Amino acid sequence: MTQRLGIGFVGGGFITRFHVQSFVGVREADVRGVWSPQRESAEQVAKLARDLDVGDCRAYGSIADMVADPAIDALWICGPNHARVENVEEVVRAIESGRGTLRGLACEKPLARNLDEAIKVRDLAARVGLKTAYLEDQLFTPHVETGRALLWARGAATTGRPYLARAAEEHSGPHTPWFWQGDLQGGGVLNDMMCHSVLLVRHLLTRPGESLETVRPVKVTCRIASLKWSRPVYAERLLATMGEAVDYTRRPSEDFASLTIEFETSDGMRVLGEASTSWSYVGAGLRLSAELLGPEYSMQWNSLDSGLRVFFSRAVQGRAGEDLVEKQNAEIGLMPVVPAEAVVYGYEAENRHYARAFLGKEEPRLTFDDGVGVVELLMSAYRSAEEERTLTLPVPDLRSFRPAVARGEWRP
Amino acid sequence: MTQRLGIGFVGGGFITRFHVQSFVGVREADVRGVWSPQRESAEQVAKLARDLDVGDCRAYGSIADMVADPAIDALWICGPNHARVENVEEVVRAIESGRGTLRGLACEKPLARNLDEAIKVRDLAARVGLKTAYLEDQLFTPHVETGRALLWARGAATTGRPYLARAAEEHSGPHTPWFWQGDLQGGGVLNDMMCHSVLLVRHLLTRPGESLETVRPVKVTCRIASLKWSRPVYAERLLATMGEAVDYTRRPSEDFASLTIEFETSDGMRVLGEASTSWSYVGAGLRLSAELLGPEYSMQWNSLDSGLRVFFSRAVQGRAGEDLVEKQNAEIGLMPVVPAEAVVYGYEAENRHYARAFLGKEEPRLTFDDGVGVVELLMSAYRSAEEERTLTLPVPDLRSFRPAVARGEWRP
Amino acid sequence: MTQRLGIGFVGGGFITRFHVQSFVGVREADVRGVWSPQRESAEQVAKLARDLDVGDCRAYGSIADMVADPAIDALWICGPNHARVENVEEVVRAIESGRGTLRGLACEKPLARNLDEAIKVRDLAARVGLKTAYLEDQLFTPHVETGRALLWARGAATTGRPYLARAAEEHSGPHTPWFWQGDLQGGGVLNDMMCHSVLLVRHLLTRPGESLETVRPVKVTCRIASLKWSRPVYAERLLATMGEAVDYTRRPSEDFASLTIEFETSDGMRVLGEASTSWSYVGAGLRLSAELLGPEYSMQWNSLDSGLRVFFSRAVQGRAGEDLVEKQNAEIGLMPVVPAEAVVYGYEAENRHYARAFLGKEEPRLTFDDGVGVVELLMSAYRSAEEERTLTLPVPDLRSFRPAVARGEWRP
Amino acid sequence: MTQRLGIGFVGGGFITRFHVQSFVGVREADVRGVWSPQRESAEQVAKLARDLDVGDCRAYGSIADMVADPAIDALWICGPNHARVENVEEVVRAIESGRGTLRGLACEKPLARNLDEAIKVRDLAARVGLKTAYLEDQLFTPHVETGRALLWARGAATTGRPYLARAAEEHSGPHTPWFWQGDLQGGGVLNDMMCHSVLLVRHLLTRPGESLETVRPVKVTCRIASLKWSRPVYAERLLATMGEAVDYTRRPSEDFASLTIEFETSDGMRVLGEASTSWSYVGAGLRLSAELLGPEYSMQWNSLDSGLRVFFSRAVQGRAGEDLVEKQNAEIGLMPVVPAEAVVYGYEAENRHYARAFLGKEEPRLTFDDGVGVVELLMSAYRSAEEERTLTLPVPDLRSFRPAVARGEWRP
Repeated sequence: MTQRLGIGFVGGGFITRFHVQSFVGVREADVRGVWSPQRESAEQVAKLARDLDVGDCRAYGSIADMVADPAIDALWICGPNHARVENVEEVVRAIESGRGTLRGLACEKPLARNLDEAIKVRDLAARVGLKTAYLEDQLFTPHVETGRALLWARGAATTGRPYLARAAEEHSGPHTPWFWQGDLQGGGVLNDMMCHSVLLVRHLLTRPGESLETVRPVKVTCRIASLKWSRPVYAERLLATMGEAVDYTRRPSEDFASLTIEFETSDGMRVLGEASTSWSYVGAGLRLSAELLGPEYSMQWNSLDSGLRVFFSRAVQGRAGEDLVEKQNAEIGLMPVVPAEAVVYGYEAENRHYARAFLGKEEPRLTFDDGVGVVELLMSAYRSAEEERTLTLPVPDLRSFRPAVARGEWRP
Repeated sequence: MTQRLGIGFVGGGFITRFHVQSFVGVREADVRGVWSPQRESAEQVAKLARDLDVGDCRAYGSIADMVADPAIDALWICGPNHARVENVEEVVRAIESGRGTLRGLACEKPLARNLDEAIKVRDLAARVGLKTAYLEDQLFTPHVETGRALLWARGAATTGRPYLARAAEEHSGPHTPWFWQGDLQGGGVLNDMMCHSVLLVRHLLTRPGESLETVRPVKVTCRIASLKWSRPVYAERLLATMGEAVDYTRRPSEDFASLTIEFETSDGMRVLGEASTSWSYVGAGLRLSAELLGPEYSMQWNSLDSGLRVFFSRAVQGRAGEDLVEKQNAEIGLMPVVPAEAVVYGYEAENRHYARAFLGKEEPRLTFDDGVGVVELLMSAYRSAEEERTLTLPVPDLRSFRPAVARGEWRP
Repeated sequence: MTQRLGIGFVGGGFITRFHVQSFVGVREADVRGVWSPQRESAEQVAKLARDLDVGDCRAYGSIADMVADPAIDALWICGPNHARVENVEEVVRAIESGRGTLRGLACEKPLARNLDEAIKVRDLAARVGLKTAYLEDQLFTPHVETGRALLWARGAATTGRPYLARAAEEHSGPHTPWFWQGDLQGGGVLNDMMCHSVLLVRHLLTRPGESLETVRPVKVTCRIASLKWSRPVYAERLLATMGEAVDYTRRPSEDFASLTIEFETSDGMRVLGEASTSWSYVGAGLRLSAELLGPEYSMQWNSLDSGLRVFFSRAVQGRAGEDLVEKQNAEIGLMPVVPAEAVVYGYEAENRHYARAFLGKEEPRLTFDDGVGVVELLMSAYRSAEEERTLTLPVPDLRSFRPAVARGEWRP
Repeated sequence: MTQRLGIGFVGGGFITRFHVQSFVGVREADVRGVWSPQRESAEQVAKLARDLDVGDCRAYGSIADMVADPAIDALWICGPNHARVENVEEVVRAIESGRGTLRGLACEKPLARNLDEAIKVRDLAARVGLKTAYLEDQLFTPHVETGRALLWARGAATTGRPYLARAAEEHSGPHTPWFWQGDLQGGGVLNDMMCHSVLLVRHLLTRPGESLETVRPVKVTCRIASLKWSRPVYAERLLATMGEAVDYTRRPSEDFASLTIEFETSDGMRVLGEASTSWSYVGAGLRLSAELLGPEYSMQWNSLDSGLRVFFSRAVQGRAGEDLVEKQNAEIGLMPVVPAEAVVYGYEAENRHYARAFLGKEEPRLTFDDGVGVVELLMSAYRSAEEERTLTLPVPDLRSFRPAVARGEWRP
């Protein structure tokens, strides 16, 4: 009776598992399939989904097989950045060849490694008329949504719109080798995580109910740096844990980036977004934070101030893990715990929304067009960092631009 | 294909609306019906459920009508305390008379006003062989569940079981008149809210996977007081807002209670639970807190440390509301915000669990037996407070005991 | 030109060193002398004072020698509890014998081990007409003083006096053997630390500028327990680190106590104080906390929320210490740091006040009379715990009362 | 016996009063004099000092009179920025003319409005061989000092030096008109407050015991903006409260600035400092914050997380004030309180240090040379902001540079 969306995942890694967990709180969809070049990963994800009872899920032999199966109504593209174009091409070919149809196609951040690829991905999806979803979980974080709504309703309504938004995403580095390789990933931490923050600050500065277009980026100033991982001892550690392809003495990626975006609003004001991102932050674990400030009000969010703290004394022995918080760096002392990470980081609300959107119950909040816009901003940011100056947007000739980090030519 | 539970609500008030909202995150159930003596309340709840798309819900003319409708598989009893017995009687009569069947019956806290009624409620459900669920949301709070699991796994496993648990639930007083009337409600804040805390401390002290019976209450010491609401100016305010039946100059209920429970564990240790509860706490809003302490570890939870804070300056004008946090007491200054209260307070996980339990997928964590146990403890606590001494459990002749507050004879 | 007070310390332990550090911020006094039965301790304290440049300080051969030296105007009694009477007797004998004079005598908490001794101490000082100071640092904590002043000025003035105060002092146990020995110390954690909290709650409930007598204790309910240190593994550890006299399998002291005091105010209201104290709290380190609650306001203080947090990952190796916070229990993870502990815990303001008081510039806030009052309340609390009931104050025959813990007869 | 320093203040405003309060905790000095062009301000400061009993203080008719008085050993220059050169000239003239001598000269931040004036101030003092002190209180904040010491000792010692420091100082705008006037003040918020943060980040990145010269600034990137005060409604409000000379529709100053400094360390590393400053931050009140991050450790400080919070409900009426925290923006809601602001912000330790330094007991930590260095960095930052690019240091021709804001020619 209730219409439900059958979802298939492309990719069987960390992010897919996060998504799968979030479906425990999604009424409108079932996780039905998963494909990964590593068959075993796909089988494990399928088992996880069944164990969580979020769908009768199985591993498929190919993306095309998922498109072909009527049980699967939509795909969530969660493979590595360097496979983006290829993955979407396979989806589109399968549809064009008549093997099957989809109600929608969702893609994890970033949409692609650079502007050229991002446009390709968007255009591919458009060619077969697919509804698209650009997956940016942080726009769905309950804290952000609630705080933003309150500030606009109680604060901005009577005293004027906010003029400064800040967002940061910081942790101690990704788990999988390809993230660390500029060519495969498209860059370093800026490409990996600043995509979250640039969209988040814009979102915060946008009046609820209005389009992101009402807050248009006009200038960007960015700095990148290698603070930790090109130090000899850490470069050596990377090599040891990530393999020979990750040699930060020769081909480092930036592990720190910060930027300022100047936006022009549709009512003629200039407002600022500041974002910071890091693979060299060693605190309790992943720290997401945001602020929004206006003439008589402000809000602050910090994911590590979760309300729950545990303490273990120096007498407590225990193995390293991630049971307290994503990417945690210690197991004793006073540690914050982030319960229900899939809810707190926004995955649950995000997946609920796009399931409903693909079922026709809501308009998708972000499409591949937004994903292209984010990549455009990131590439402008890399260029600003390379030129060490503020750039006016749009930056010309950006489609052919590849960051020095991606070309393996960055020398910090 | 997926089996779903159709749920009907008895009662159309504050707590029902909280539950309904939580079903946004429950895959296994639909809200299908609601009955309230106030038809309009029922209609509003039904509309809320439909607006949230958590089920094709409608208002029914009687509890029996809900039992009779095959669309409804289980009832959630959320009426006022004084209607408990009557509500359950109607359910049981409808079943016994063959008008319909149910897969389960859930009842909000407390199970009843006193031990006598609680036993009646339990026995009624047992008479028709119903699966039961005693609804204690705080056992499902993600923070409590996660913290408890971590402490037992990382701390207790190697250094010994915890010896002290604390829990408190404090706010500035309920919204509806019957809560304030000792006879209708069964008592004051102790009866209204200490039910949460006494179970929570016992739960925290119990090894995950083991039964609550392994941590058996053996002594209780309790104090109650009227700190705020019998002061003349506040008694007058209550009269003005709650009506003539609420006269705290003549028939006050306690607005503060604290107690200590001594438990004996199945491995022969004595451990303590401390609980505190208040209708006279004027902070940002509802404050739930808990601690668990052991020989080399501890945890702390405070629902108001939510990670999100908003600030509005004295220049911001706005109406009073509850958009920041339940029972909020100010709209300006630095205020914590609790996003997703239905998740944070445990309702979502609770309803997911009992939906699954009534569908036969899990064993119910708490049944009416547990509800009886809680009432027994609360009545022992009232008696301890009245006698101003520690009582050894079980307290004799408790079934016929009615607190002085409930009898309208309490003079603080 | 500026009149300065020369101070001598009796005792050369932990608390003396804390006091000495605080004199860095005291303009009106110099630390000139110290006596300890361990000559070496005295020498070290004298060196510390000289190194900190808080006075030309030297070790003395006896208390009487300090009294005799005109450089020393006042003594701060900081020896162990069991030496209290003896120490004060020596002071008084020296004065009565004409060897010297003092402008004042200050004594650390508690004034003595039991009511009998406390009265003796008070009467001894009175016999030679000494100005006295009962040293309770927490009344001088800047956080408490500021918060209390604000609540009374902004809150109580317009909406009525506060009705509930809470205070707690919790850590993982004292450093020195005699604290653990009931006979030497007079009891366990209740005697050692509840002296702080019972006075603090009364202080908070008292209108600034009014006497403590306006908030008179009328009932007390107390519970004590041995939560951690009589567990076999911890009893063994105590024996190993504290020596054979500390055998908690045979003569345990309570390591946890909580109590409720009912006060009657001079304007006829009943208000509550709740206090909790622990040697079995294993969190980051010493935790001092307090709350004050009234009809439209509240305050919270927690010494561990100091605004400064450090994080060390599991890769950081370091020795155990107390450089982050007093009685810290871990060196890695996210840890709060309490800078300027001698200021934050109130020692600096306390010593400034009593220096000025003994110089005649201010009236002493607490005298030995207050110290006697505190001991009376503690003894009443022990008795309540032993009798497991609420006691009405004053409790008869208290002067001869010795807690079971002090008699070595407590069996928890 | 103890040598004491007699101090005279130049200026009788907000900052002088802050300093005077801090002397309550300074043993080595007395506040003996004050001069202000407003005689009444001087009299009030003198009375404050006497009331606090920090010195037999009186108002003088001129700076020269203070120099001439043997009771005064040192001056603390706390006048407005535009009087800096003139004030120091009067000091130097008085000394050169033989009217008196001084043991030292301390000057509040910034040393002057621009590099030219800063060099003049330094050279004037050098001409008469005065010991100097550049007053930067935040280097003496107990939280910063303690956190920095811990991170270097426990973290950097074993895992490598820190690579990123952050500092911010944010509030809702100064109290006095001249701060808002670019010509008088030298700039806007960057000149007013970034002086704190640029020095603080450098200090944090410098190994304790080593000179600031070991961490040398090599690049700066800065952005300034007018976020709030040039909005018509706020420009109007400024005009109304600050007077006609403050017209932000025509001559705005920046009310927000952020910058990144790249430092080269003496051991050949590149490390970053990020600083942010605002007159457009509307939170509880003044917010000071800092972070220091390294390969396996981090620290965070936020002055508003003081451990003390008060709450007043919407029923509490009270006048606006600054009794909770400096520059507070609300009186109800949950508000942080900063007790002992003169200690927390570093004034007490700062004044203790420089009193001792001028008495010859310690080496001054910062001299006018450091003040010149700070102004040089600020001017480089203005230039970077005007040119919208990263500048390599030292920037040529900086001595004659005047920021557009100071020239009244800035159009944001």
